[in-house]
Amino acid sequence: MTDARYEKLEQLGSAGAAPQRPEDAVLERVENPARDGDYLIRFTCPEFTSICPVTGQPDFAHIVIDYAPGPWIVESKSLKLFLQSFRNHGAFHEACTTMIGQRLVDALAPKWLRIGGYWYPRGGIPIDVFAQWGEAPKGLWIPDQGVAPYRGRG
Amino acid sequence: MTDARYEKLEQLGSAGAAPQRPEDAVLERVENPARDGDYLIRFTCPEFTSICPVTGQPDFAHIVIDYAPGPWIVESKSLKLFLQSFRNHGAFHEACTTMIGQRLVDALAPKWLRIGGYWYPRGGIPIDVFAQWGEAPKGLWIPDQGVAPYRGRG
Amino acid sequence: MTDARYEKLEQLGSAGAAPQRPEDAVLERVENPARDGDYLIRFTCPEFTSICPVTGQPDFAHIVIDYAPGPWIVESKSLKLFLQSFRNHGAFHEACTTMIGQRLVDALAPKWLRIGGYWYPRGGIPIDVFAQWGEAPKGLWIPDQGVAPYRGRG
Amino acid sequence: MTDARYEKLEQLGSAGAAPQRPEDAVLERVENPARDGDYLIRFTCPEFTSICPVTGQPDFAHIVIDYAPGPWIVESKSLKLFLQSFRNHGAFHEACTTMIGQRLVDALAPKWLRIGGYWYPRGGIPIDVFAQWGEAPKGLWIPDQGVAPYRGRG
Amino acid sequence: MTDARYEKLEQLGSAGAAPQRPEDAVLERVENPARDGDYLIRFTCPEFTSICPVTGQPDFAHIVIDYAPGPWIVESKSLKLFLQSFRNHGAFHEACTTMIGQRLVDALAPKWLRIGGYWYPRGGIPIDVFAQWGEAPKGLWIPDQGVAPYRGRG
Amino acid sequence: MTDARYEKLEQLGSAGAAPQRPEDAVLERVENPARDGDYLIRFTCPEFTSICPVTGQPDFAHIVIDYAPGPWIVESKSLKLFLQSFRNHGAFHEACTTMIGQRLVDALAPKWLRIGGYWYPRGGIPIDVFAQWGEAPKGLWIPDQGVAPYRGRG
Amino acid sequence: MTDARYEKLEQLGSAGAAPQRPEDAVLERVENPARDGDYLIRFTCPEFTSICPVTGQPDFAHIVIDYAPGPWIVESKSLKLFLQSFRNHGAFHEACTTMIGQRLVDALAPKWLRIGGYWYPRGGIPIDVFAQWGEAPKGLWIPDQGVAPYRGRG
Amino acid sequence: MTDARYEKLEQLGSAGAAPQRPEDAVLERVENPARDGDYLIRFTCPEFTSICPVTGQPDFAHIVIDYAPGPWIVESKSLKLFLQSFRNHGAFHEACTTMIGQRLVDALAPKWLRIGGYWYPRGGIPIDVFAQWGEAPKGLWIPDQGVAPYRGRG
Amino acid sequence: MTDARYEKLEQLGSAGAAPQRPEDAVLERVENPARDGDYLIRFTCPEFTSICPVTGQPDFAHIVIDYAPGPWIVESKSLKLFLQSFRNHGAFHEACTTMIGQRLVDALAPKWLRIGGYWYPRGGIPIDVFAQWGEAPKGLWIPDQGVAPYRGRG
Amino acid sequence: MTDARYEKLEQLGSAGAAPQRPEDAVLERVENPARDGDYLIRFTCPEFTSICPVTGQPDFAHIVIDYAPGPWIVESKSLKLFLQSFRNHGAFHEACTTMIGQRLVDALAPKWLRIGGYWYPRGGIPIDVFAQWGEAPKGLWIPDQGVAPYRGRG
Ligand SMILES: [Ca+2]
Ligand SMILES: [Ca+2]
Ligand SMILES: [Ca+2]
Ligand SMILES: [Ca+2]
Ligand SMILES: [Ca+2]
Ligand SMILES: [Ca+2]
Ligand SMILES: [Ca+2]
Ligand SMILES: [Ca+2]
Ligand SMILES: [Ca+2]
Ligand SMILES: [Ca+2]
Ligand SMILES: [Ca+2]
Ligand SMILES: [Ca+2]
Ligand SMILES: [Ca+2]
Ligand SMILES: [Ca+2]
Ligand SMILES: [Ca+2]
Ligand SMILES: [Ca+2]
Repeated sequence: MTDARYEKLEQLGSAGAAPQRPEDAVLERVENPARDGDYLIRFTCPEFTSICPVTGQPDFAHIVIDYAPGPWIVESKSLKLFLQSFRNHGAFHEACTTMIGQRLVDALAPKWLRIGGYWYPRGGIPIDVFAQWGEAPKGLWIPDQGVAPYRGRG
Repeated sequence: MTDARYEKLEQLGSAGAAPQRPEDAVLERVENPARDGDYLIRFTCPEFTSICPVTGQPDFAHIVIDYAPGPWIVESKSLKLFLQSFRNHGAFHEACTTMIGQRLVDALAPKWLRIGGYWYPRGGIPIDVFAQWGEAPKGLWIPDQGVAPYRGRG
Repeated sequence: MTDARYEKLEQLGSAGAAPQRPEDAVLERVENPARDGDYLIRFTCPEFTSICPVTGQPDFAHIVIDYAPGPWIVESKSLKLFLQSFRNHGAFHEACTTMIGQRLVDALAPKWLRIGGYWYPRGGIPIDVFAQWGEAPKGLWIPDQGVAPYRGRG
Repeated sequence: MTDARYEKLEQLGSAGAAPQRPEDAVLERVENPARDGDYLIRFTCPEFTSICPVTGQPDFAHIVIDYAPGPWIVESKSLKLFLQSFRNHGAFHEACTTMIGQRLVDALAPKWLRIGGYWYPRGGIPIDVFAQWGEAPKGLWIPDQGVAPYRGRG
Repeated sequence: MTDARYEKLEQLGSAGAAPQRPEDAVLERVENPARDGDYLIRFTCPEFTSICPVTGQPDFAHIVIDYAPGPWIVESKSLKLFLQSFRNHGAFHEACTTMIGQRLVDALAPKWLRIGGYWYPRGGIPIDVFAQWGEAPKGLWIPDQGVAPYRGRG
Repeated sequence: MTDARYEKLEQLGSAGAAPQRPEDAVLERVENPARDGDYLIRFTCPEFTSICPVTGQPDFAHIVIDYAPGPWIVESKSLKLFLQSFRNHGAFHEACTTMIGQRLVDALAPKWLRIGGYWYPRGGIPIDVFAQWGEAPKGLWIPDQGVAPYRGRG
Repeated sequence: MTDARYEKLEQLGSAGAAPQRPEDAVLERVENPARDGDYLIRFTCPEFTSICPVTGQPDFAHIVIDYAPGPWIVESKSLKLFLQSFRNHGAFHEACTTMIGQRLVDALAPKWLRIGGYWYPRGGIPIDVFAQWGEAPKGLWIPDQGVAPYRGRG
Repeated sequence: MTDARYEKLEQLGSAGAAPQRPEDAVLERVENPARDGDYLIRFTCPEFTSICPVTGQPDFAHIVIDYAPGPWIVESKSLKLFLQSFRNHGAFHEACTTMIGQRLVDALAPKWLRIGGYWYPRGGIPIDVFAQWGEAPKGLWIPDQGVAPYRGRG
Repeated sequence: MTDARYEKLEQLGSAGAAPQRPEDAVLERVENPARDGDYLIRFTCPEFTSICPVTGQPDFAHIVIDYAPGPWIVESKSLKLFLQSFRNHGAFHEACTTMIGQRLVDALAPKWLRIGGYWYPRGGIPIDVFAQWGEAPKGLWIPDQGVAPYRGRG
Repeated sequence: MTDARYEKLEQLGSAGAAPQRPEDAVLERVENPARDGDYLIRFTCPEFTSICPVTGQPDFAHIVIDYAPGPWIVESKSLKLFLQSFRNHGAFHEACTTMIGQRLVDALAPKWLRIGGYWYPRGGIPIDVFAQWGEAPKGLWIPDQGVAPYRGRG
């Protein structure tokens, strides 16, 4: 049931060593299977963690990525490993979130991409970061990410 | 209580053999009963399953289809059987979702059609695919699909 | 506490025979009490039922109607009886929904009207129908109907 | 801790007799404390009740008011007493809702004001009324009122 | 990072052929790692599908399994493949649900086990099946499964 | 794929005339397929309607039925038709709800049965009726029905 | 379609003057239509208002009443009018809530009755009052009232 | 409309100085108006704040108090002022929560009292404290407090 | 793991005295780490409290701040301390909310900033305040704040 | 504002090196401040992550801990660091969850303790682990943990 399109993929279906730093992670891509029109692909990643660069404490986030592919789509196993590679990476919320977006933009040359980073609270106050690259193609359908707002208690 | 409009339908009310592949499924259509103005028809299909083309494992999705009919509307029993015919079909999320939309566009010549594919998570990360065909008629009322975002645990 | 405006109403406060068919129902109207500006009136009707024209089985729907009145507003008791008169009426989801809208348009000459029909699932797949008549007056405030999407189980 | 701006207020902090009719209620106002830019003030009033003019039965509503102030903002105690004064007032849903909006417009000369009246069901069917006055200033941020739609049972 | 306890497992981490029938599936087990006291393990399986034995149409269910292990716990990859093997199995809701529970009881000799099968609606009416085996050990903490009830529309 | 157990069923898979009164409906039954232990079967019926015996107006309800089978389980198509036969039946909420339960008890001789009738509001006040027959077998797992309480507006 | 049982009722279907004080309201009753076993009847009353005896300000509450009938059940129209008669009654939350329960106990001689009064906040703090009379019959099914707790904002 | 029972109250309806420390606050009480049976009174206090004794930073909590009164009930204005007096009080979550409960027990001699303190997260981890005094009277109806659990993000 | 960019910060990681008045609080800033494009930063602050300038009673709010940074982003510890400094500050809802926004605008020179203040109810009626400064950069992604509306009880 | 009770604590308010393995983490404790009666302390920890011992991939969980203290309560900063020390620890869901509970039992000698581990899905199926130690003291109030069940999509 394999498909010629996927023959070059190195990570999917492989048990190779996982990248330990974002710099080491490789975002693999395959041809966009539906190039006749524009459409939107959304990844929801509730299992993200990185390190605070000042205190060394772990940070956690719920991440949602939307993009309109150009010639390529990202291979999802390599995306998963890329996100996991932040596990020991020290950077601020704004920097992590925008770095993930930038790396995907560099790898995929999408028509448009956006990322929402919904970070767990520190000091009682969560931070969300919302960034996008490029202009959404005319006629693209862009549903709201709809993540529930933080409410504290009660 | 039957109606002349439906006389040619082959699947509705029949117990004929169900199609085993999308290629074998026939999307039947009936005349649009309300051609004076534009309106939107939404199908919500929470019972979709296909096969991963690489691993052979089943995939699951919640599918929502919106369209503004032209001369035809789809007969819903034939739509159900078409969707069921993906049960043993191997294709990626992006390909399945856009293929369903394309087949409906080919069969119905709608003024506009869109499909949202909300796939169950693999590797902890669900993928959503949002695609549309044509331009929504001016004045068409298009409610949000409003499907709850994936939230992991807690 | 009665009001001259309502003197001609035949159904409100009366126990007359209820209409047995949509054709027999009379949508009564009263003068729009607030003609200085445009506004929106919403009716939510979770108690709708009709008959499937092919199988003779009952169908159920949750119906929401929005309109911007012109010279008239509908009297709500007559609306209730009109909706109840579909109880033994055989017609498809698309036909019932658009027929209700059309009858209100004919009776009230509203500036704009829309109807959302949220039908209970058949064959595992619910159908929603969204239709509107006329163009919403500039500056009209039109809140989303916000009906929860169908989710199956779990 | 009192403030010169509030010296003329008659109702705030006073136990004077409450108005028994909307006609007797006085909407007091104070200077808009933030005249440099436009902003929106929202009041949510879940404790509203009036009388049906035909049957004499009590009606209940959940009311939400949004406005962009001009020179004045309403003093909230006087607003509360104004709303309470409908307790024995007989009028239809459409008339009550638009009357509240009109009185506030007359008292405050706001740049823009809107009111949503979400009435409890009668005959199984709730009515909502949505009205606005003036044009929202360019750049005003107007969040959705987001009141949950009526759903019947189940 | 492997562990001697898991050396005998055949399915975990392997890409061997998936079982095509429940009869062919093997539920593998490993030693209970926490035998000092009783505890409860819950699996939530929202991706279940089987075949209606009368109509040949697919059925869908959301399945939740709770058990208090004795000497063994089930290996989760083999559980997943066992559940997937119902994909072409024809049986009624009651039979599928209780068969899953019985097979687990036979394989694991748990102190107690229960299964909730929350089936998607047919004919507008969903069926839930709740079964248990053995008596829950005294002091076992048994949280409610808390699956949302079916609500139709609106 | 049919099964000898079901050969005597008259309604399943048949398009015979639907019963017009509860008195005419026949609750068919098949052998309990899992007699080794006790378990609970739940039907959720959001599509119920009857007639008010005093006013002749339609009433609506969301009905949930739980039972622990003895020798028989109810055939679900016949249950659906039985419930539909109340469409023109005039009786009060308490009477309808308990009559449904009693008929099932008579037909199935279950070890225990309960029914929750969640009726749509009349006069602003919904009525719920909760009844049960027999004593639940020791060790039966009885999840809460969990139907959302009525909340009015806001 | 009327029924001999209801011939003595004075308020149902009548437009007589509504009682102005709880003392003037008459709780009418009819024979319990299902005396073979115990069952529970729940009324949900989201439209309750009374007067604060100290400040004269209106109070609001959401009221839920559960009871197991003895020989009588309450006629719901008379219950509605009884509750409406508190509109100008001055009493504290605890007194209103327990008075409603006591009057029903006196009128109906139920086997058991309980009332939950969920009052709107004053001073930022809502008060709930939960009271019951008699002992619930063995085997009575008593679902939780499940009213959402107050949460403030956010 | 005042009532002899309340004549001795000092804080209700008065604008006297608010207590600045819990030690200075006086919990006033009035006679229990419904001594014939046991019932439960619930206060929900979403506006609580105190000071961390180690860091001096403010802490926030959502507090819910349930009790079954003996001879007295607490006057709610004095309760509000008592809770506000923690604004500059330094103590740990466990100490604040249990201190509030103890003071109420001392002031009211209730038959039973419990308090739930739902504290806002510190270091990503919220703490809840659940304490009770005395034994709930037999037959007391004790609804769950039902406060939503903390969920982080997503 | 510290970073040269943060060397000048005085409050982060320090236990210095917290500011006692908004006038004393210093909003510290660091360079915007992602100046290539526009993006949005959201702070959710559910732990806000101030003092009513007329009555001296505490007020509570849930605050959400969104901004598109220019050259600077706010350091979050200093933001937390700034918000805490309102603890003994007397001002009305409208004034507090707009003052917070203005101070951030002065400190950060953002391209655009908005603030939503969701205040706890007084007199049964909560007030929300929505204000913004500047014009959102073209292409900025601005998700709804999505705070649940106030609903009273039930 | 410090307190003699806390003088021996090493981690609270300190920036010492965080433990890198559970074996290195020290659970500090302080005297139970409320020894007169039993009460329950709940920690909700949505930021937990460990490593799969077979695949080396990260696992995520939402953890809730309830206990009734004996002579000691756990110091929450040390608990946080203990939980963080699992970041590079390889163990199965059942082992991690029960190990956390056991370490707390060893450190605190509580009267009773329970832990719920709500793990993110792997292979589409999440696992929950529920364990407890000791017997809950008579009269302890033990609220449900109330974590939302996993629902897949739709
Ligand atoms: Ca915090
Ligand atoms: Ca709160
Ligand atoms: Ca979580
Ligand atoms: Ca599901
Ligand atoms: Ca329903
Ligand atoms: Ca169906
Ligand atoms: Ca409904
Ligand atoms: Ca009604
Ligand atoms: Ca309300
Ligand atoms: Ca209040
Ligand atoms: Ca809050
Ligand atoms: Ca935190
Ligand atoms: Ca999450
Ligand atoms: Ca309410
Ligand atoms: Ca997964
Ligand atoms: Ca689903």
